[in-house]
Amino acid sequence: MSANIVVEKLRFVPVEEQNVELVERKGLGHPDYIADAVAEASSIALSKYYLKKYGIILHHNLDKVLLVGGQSAPRFGGGEVLHPMYIVVAGRGTEVVINEGNSLEYVPIGTLIIGATKNWIKKNFRFLDPEKHVVIDYKIRSGSADLVQTYRLGLKSVPLSNDTSFGVSYAPLSTLEKLVYSVERYLNDGNVKKSLPEVGEDVKVMGLRIGNKIKLTIAAALISGLIPDLSHYLSVKEEIVNRVTDLTAKVAVGYDVDVYVNTADKPEKNVVYLSVTGTSAEHGDDGATGRGNRVNGLITPLRPMSLEATAGKNPVSHVGKLYNVLARYICDKVVNEIPKVREVYMEILSQIGRPIDEPLMAVVKLVVDEDSNFQSVKSDVEGLIRSELSNVTRLTELIVNEQISIF
Amino acid sequence: MSANIVVEKLRFVPVEEQNVELVERKGLGHPDYIADAVAEASSIALSKYYLKKYGIILHHNLDKVLLVGGQSAPRFGGGEVLHPMYIVVAGRGTEVVINEGNSLEYVPIGTLIIGATKNWIKKNFRFLDPEKHVVIDYKIRSGSADLVQTYRLGLKSVPLSNDTSFGVSYAPLSTLEKLVYSVERYLNDGNVKKSLPEVGEDVKVMGLRIGNKIKLTIAAALISGLIPDLSHYLSVKEEIVNRVTDLTAKVAVGYDVDVYVNTADKPEKNVVYLSVTGTSAEHGDDGATGRGNRVNGLITPLRPMSLEATAGKNPVSHVGKLYNVLARYICDKVVNEIPKVREVYMEILSQIGRPIDEPLMAVVKLVVDEDSNFQSVKSDVEGLIRSELSNVTRLTELIVNEQISIF
Amino acid sequence: MSANIVVEKLRFVPVEEQNVELVERKGLGHPDYIADAVAEASSIALSKYYLKKYGIILHHNLDKVLLVGGQSAPRFGGGEVLHPMYIVVAGRGTEVVINEGNSLEYVPIGTLIIGATKNWIKKNFRFLDPEKHVVIDYKIRSGSADLVQTYRLGLKSVPLSNDTSFGVSYAPLSTLEKLVYSVERYLNDGNVKKSLPEVGEDVKVMGLRIGNKIKLTIAAALISGLIPDLSHYLSVKEEIVNRVTDLTAKVAVGYDVDVYVNTADKPEKNVVYLSVTGTSAEHGDDGATGRGNRVNGLITPLRPMSLEATAGKNPVSHVGKLYNVLARYICDKVVNEIPKVREVYMEILSQIGRPIDEPLMAVVKLVVDEDSNFQSVKSDVEGLIRSELSNVTRLTELIVNEQISIF
Amino acid sequence: MSANIVVEKLRFVPVEEQNVELVERKGLGHPDYIADAVAEASSIALSKYYLKKYGIILHHNLDKVLLVGGQSAPRFGGGEVLHPMYIVVAGRGTEVVINEGNSLEYVPIGTLIIGATKNWIKKNFRFLDPEKHVVIDYKIRSGSADLVQTYRLGLKSVPLSNDTSFGVSYAPLSTLEKLVYSVERYLNDGNVKKSLPEVGEDVKVMGLRIGNKIKLTIAAALISGLIPDLSHYLSVKEEIVNRVTDLTAKVAVGYDVDVYVNTADKPEKNVVYLSVTGTSAEHGDDGATGRGNRVNGLITPLRPMSLEATAGKNPVSHVGKLYNVLARYICDKVVNEIPKVREVYMEILSQIGRPIDEPLMAVVKLVVDEDSNFQSVKSDVEGLIRSELSNVTRLTELIVNEQISIF
Repeated sequence: MSANIVVEKLRFVPVEEQNVELVERKGLGHPDYIADAVAEASSIALSKYYLKKYGIILHHNLDKVLLVGGQSAPRFGGGEVLHPMYIVVAGRGTEVVINEGNSLEYVPIGTLIIGATKNWIKKNFRFLDPEKHVVIDYKIRSGSADLVQTYRLGLKSVPLSNDTSFGVSYAPLSTLEKLVYSVERYLNDGNVKKSLPEVGEDVKVMGLRIGNKIKLTIAAALISGLIPDLSHYLSVKEEIVNRVTDLTAKVAVGYDVDVYVNTADKPEKNVVYLSVTGTSAEHGDDGATGRGNRVNGLITPLRPMSLEATAGKNPVSHVGKLYNVLARYICDKVVNEIPKVREVYMEILSQIGRPIDEPLMAVVKLVVDEDSNFQSVKSDVEGLIRSELSNVTRLTELIVNEQISIF
Repeated sequence: MSANIVVEKLRFVPVEEQNVELVERKGLGHPDYIADAVAEASSIALSKYYLKKYGIILHHNLDKVLLVGGQSAPRFGGGEVLHPMYIVVAGRGTEVVINEGNSLEYVPIGTLIIGATKNWIKKNFRFLDPEKHVVIDYKIRSGSADLVQTYRLGLKSVPLSNDTSFGVSYAPLSTLEKLVYSVERYLNDGNVKKSLPEVGEDVKVMGLRIGNKIKLTIAAALISGLIPDLSHYLSVKEEIVNRVTDLTAKVAVGYDVDVYVNTADKPEKNVVYLSVTGTSAEHGDDGATGRGNRVNGLITPLRPMSLEATAGKNPVSHVGKLYNVLARYICDKVVNEIPKVREVYMEILSQIGRPIDEPLMAVVKLVVDEDSNFQSVKSDVEGLIRSELSNVTRLTELIVNEQISIF
Repeated sequence: MSANIVVEKLRFVPVEEQNVELVERKGLGHPDYIADAVAEASSIALSKYYLKKYGIILHHNLDKVLLVGGQSAPRFGGGEVLHPMYIVVAGRGTEVVINEGNSLEYVPIGTLIIGATKNWIKKNFRFLDPEKHVVIDYKIRSGSADLVQTYRLGLKSVPLSNDTSFGVSYAPLSTLEKLVYSVERYLNDGNVKKSLPEVGEDVKVMGLRIGNKIKLTIAAALISGLIPDLSHYLSVKEEIVNRVTDLTAKVAVGYDVDVYVNTADKPEKNVVYLSVTGTSAEHGDDGATGRGNRVNGLITPLRPMSLEATAGKNPVSHVGKLYNVLARYICDKVVNEIPKVREVYMEILSQIGRPIDEPLMAVVKLVVDEDSNFQSVKSDVEGLIRSELSNVTRLTELIVNEQISIF
Repeated sequence: MSANIVVEKLRFVPVEEQNVELVERKGLGHPDYIADAVAEASSIALSKYYLKKYGIILHHNLDKVLLVGGQSAPRFGGGEVLHPMYIVVAGRGTEVVINEGNSLEYVPIGTLIIGATKNWIKKNFRFLDPEKHVVIDYKIRSGSADLVQTYRLGLKSVPLSNDTSFGVSYAPLSTLEKLVYSVERYLNDGNVKKSLPEVGEDVKVMGLRIGNKIKLTIAAALISGLIPDLSHYLSVKEEIVNRVTDLTAKVAVGYDVDVYVNTADKPEKNVVYLSVTGTSAEHGDDGATGRGNRVNGLITPLRPMSLEATAGKNPVSHVGKLYNVLARYICDKVVNEIPKVREVYMEILSQIGRPIDEPLMAVVKLVVDEDSNFQSVKSDVEGLIRSELSNVTRLTELIVNEQISIF
């Protein structure tokens, strides 16, 4: 098995030292984020139901959620949703379970998906009401699982890969990556929402670094009902700039950062970025699962990325999900626990039908300190990978219990 | 105008004296009733919004609601909804209003329809949760109204018929008709629901009278969560029979009434009529607007009936609604206020484009006591009709304020 | 069994001799007609598939079709469909068949329904292209049938009623009824379509008779692509009036008939009734199964009518379909074959679970010639009914082979 | 403007010389490819309509297509589609055009989208019939364009970016990339389809290179109707291996290539990869726009990639599309036309509101031959970029006329 692990030295200028860097994060209320979150919340709800009732997570894949934007009429001090947005959860699920004695049990798959979607919205938005502003439908083709046979085959054994696919990740985050991530998390932080409630949940942050100059472009849907007039709007924008500037002083020490907010505004023509509910999905912006952040919460076009959606896939056998999460997990551990490693890149490749703890190939590329002993580092990394691979099923639990963020 | 009113004597054995009578009522929780109620609740919500904002009810027609039944797994003492039912409200509405100075105002037509539907369900069901058990969507093609022009044309004037159509009704109800209606109303009465909570909202009553023998067949979806076992189920059925028998003793004096409940049950095979939510729509029964009760709340195949759905149409210019309501209203008044009239049948025919208080033709057929002076009765009836026609727009208010039941 | 047949004399002025009569027919291209036809075509396609593959028609009920009108922009000499109409076929069907040895066979229910719908449109319209102008979807909850068990229970035996329901009909048609029916059939006749191709398939005929004066109001969607200008439009309308007037001279001898076509036109404002495809469903008019013609092809508010949709239900056990068809069939036979009968009305009532050839009650009311021997007529009628009841399963074949029209 | 162009040397081991490489291509019939193709075909149809009618491409964005897999029952020698797949095209489009004199013109947006989708399927599949096997719907929120104002603003000027976004690409393709691409193109080539018709359109190729050893894993849905039995199936697989091996001998000279086809097959259990129509979308596999190939037709996790979908966006102002296409175009030119350049990577960043020929930043990183004069190369590259940027609007034409492939 160890033959499948390749650890090699990467001759590469660390990202931080390259001249140009581009990073983006689609925040909590962005239509693509919502589509990811709904897919994942639905998968978790199914997983928990299966676990509770049958002790195992049965097959499902809900990684195709489409959000069709609604229509709204925000105005200073108020506004209305004219047409709710429309969310359809598409995919597969196990709906019928064949118990001993050929008796059938039905899984309330529709009720679970709709409930999970509404709950996620309720927990994460203050002004988007899932009962008023969203139509939620689903198109799930369902299959059946023969539980008796499943148990006979040995539940406790390691699941088999359901696809030939790969996961990729890297560590650590660059300063710009940390900054972009932090800015969105800050603006959607519970306390910040209390002191600056006008900022809607739909916050998108784009960061460009050229040398040590950073341009942060923030698009933030402001809540129309909390903003009585243009001057209030402008003061909120100013406050965002100030706060983000303060934050960058901590996160991006030594960089020269310019912060731009809602650059498409033309205040003189009353063109500003208002929303009734806090998301641009209320008026025409559509979203889809797998079109937003990668497993580390970022879009990093100049870094290796997988195109597999991590959201919505089952966390047991779907390597398009598991191996991305695993790669990220291992990379973090490598840079945190193994000295002399400056950057690590990892790819894990599955082959359909192989046990998931035996990937076809795991490749790690390291940028190490010049004074390091590569053979020693390599050996440590291999050990760590072997250990994590043998523990891979533990990730399933972390995912289902939402102890790990995946977009 | 009076030339359009025809009053004639009907040589006809009154229904009560005929040998065979057939009457049906689809109760509150029947899928067709739900489809009617959702259509009407949506129309009322739009009407109220238009009235409040613009002083008039703008054009709409929402009389095509489809309810696709869900899937459920009731069992003694509990059960679950597996797949929510699906309701789609189809039709037309005025979504854009052109104000003075060509400024546009948008009507939150989607939010209104979905809100009205959910509210109706919440108010009328105890165990059907619109947030968990129903997916509500809509397909409304929207038009615009030029308010300026509308006002110029004179809002206060009488609206014009939007179609060539007719309304029909009759009075009084026969004993069987009263009985069928009362039985459903009784079983869905608030107090009865307290003392006999196991009876779901989906109650369908079919009455057959041959001579003075009546067979009442009641289909009532019982609430699975409140019924721990078969013997409890059977005792509830018995209680329904007893109570309905008591009721018939008051409503159908002199008739010999047999009461049957859930006749398709086969208790020995555990085949009984249970539901999680109180409606058969939870498991496979579909519904559509206009397929259930007529304007008097009954299906009476041996009496004149209009096929126009009263539910969902706008209550201003849609004669398919207004003339049915009007015919019923006038018939009730005729038998209540004009002596010697035993039965009255009425048809009112519109012509597209005519003011609604000037129908193309209003025909009244009377069964009068033998000792009556027909000319005198006729003259009274004509007077009453003229008076009601000139007041026809008042019906709009009664409908919008739900002071009149129409299915 | 004969105890369930009641034949009685109706003391009733024959409809023809009453003063006022109202009759309507929604023609081939009317949205409600399309909804009926799509439901029935789908049921027939399933029935034929089941018959061919399994020798019996398995359970299904497709009597809830919703047609949401599209959007179009007709103009003299051309025009376009902007948005296709949307048809959704809702209901139940048997999708899985369990064969001997517990092997499963799947029924291509989706492909059959969509194919049948498109074929019906192709066969019946010249300008409505199912591939371009219609979106066809379906929402069918499917069940399974255990064929082995079905055969064991005895296929050849008479099916059991699936509901407590009734069928009603009457014969003969009055002159006005014949006229309304004939006019629509004439305008949609293949040869007439050749000589007067401008007339679209959506023809609605409303007839009002007062004494011997008849007003026929025809709404006919004219094909925009075939009508270069207003004067051509007006000449087509004139031609319709002329031809229909000729027809009435044959069908309604002795009546004074006025013919009106497209009365809402305001030619001076260019408001005329044009359509690109031949149906008003192309622009905003919605349709639903069961909202149009009754089993005899007519809407007759002053005659007994059933509210059951005949279209789309399975023709084996669904009495809401079979008993309407049967009642009509028997009524026709009675007036054709039994002398001295002037009018016949019939109701047939089922009880869920009874064999369909043993209705709970069959009531026949006769208007007979004054010189007739009622006992003899009654006896003949009873004999005919008994004979037809014992042959009721034959209707299934007539329906599936489309040898009988039912709306 | 030249200040925005950065050209720098990349200190980087060329991909070809790195130890591990991973490349994937989702072929013509893959569900994600279909979703991309439907989005793009719809955008092109709209663009051509707008161009023909108004001389410009009006605003639209159709980059959210969801394909929900159908259900089928393939078997050796035949099989059936049980449930058609479902495609919904979501997005925005300009539906109303305001002409001089405030007259309105409507765009047949629905008919265009459905027509384009069906045409694409017809042209690209032999056994997938868009009329039988696919339900096509759309959810487009539409806006209006004031043509008069548009012209006044100056149509001929350069469009403004509609978003802050970026495009990335690189050149040349590595040997593995060329191979993966070629294999799919070969198997979907018209002539190959004639000599090896059993190979369906859904071909997915995954390539892994370790040193000079390549593993090609091909998933190919074989056409059930053309394969009478298992031995024929196995011989087709063998033929694919042979032919692809021949192809690799030409494309990947000097590499040691292993070819695997349908590795999940278990012939001994009759588990093989058959399809009725040629795509896995017929049975449960879903697809979505933007989840498949990048602008160069490949998924290259170890190369820079943009997450923007190129398909479906308007080709005039949507930089998420244009800048990806442009980056690829420029990279190809650089390696083809400028000597001494071994590899080129490019990022182009827009800022909302800037003319599209003036990106905020264009970064080019070069791997050059050791003996090259970098200043001279750099100057040539800058010149080429400037020239291409000033010609950027020409790409619009190439895209609309399908002279350039973008996924």
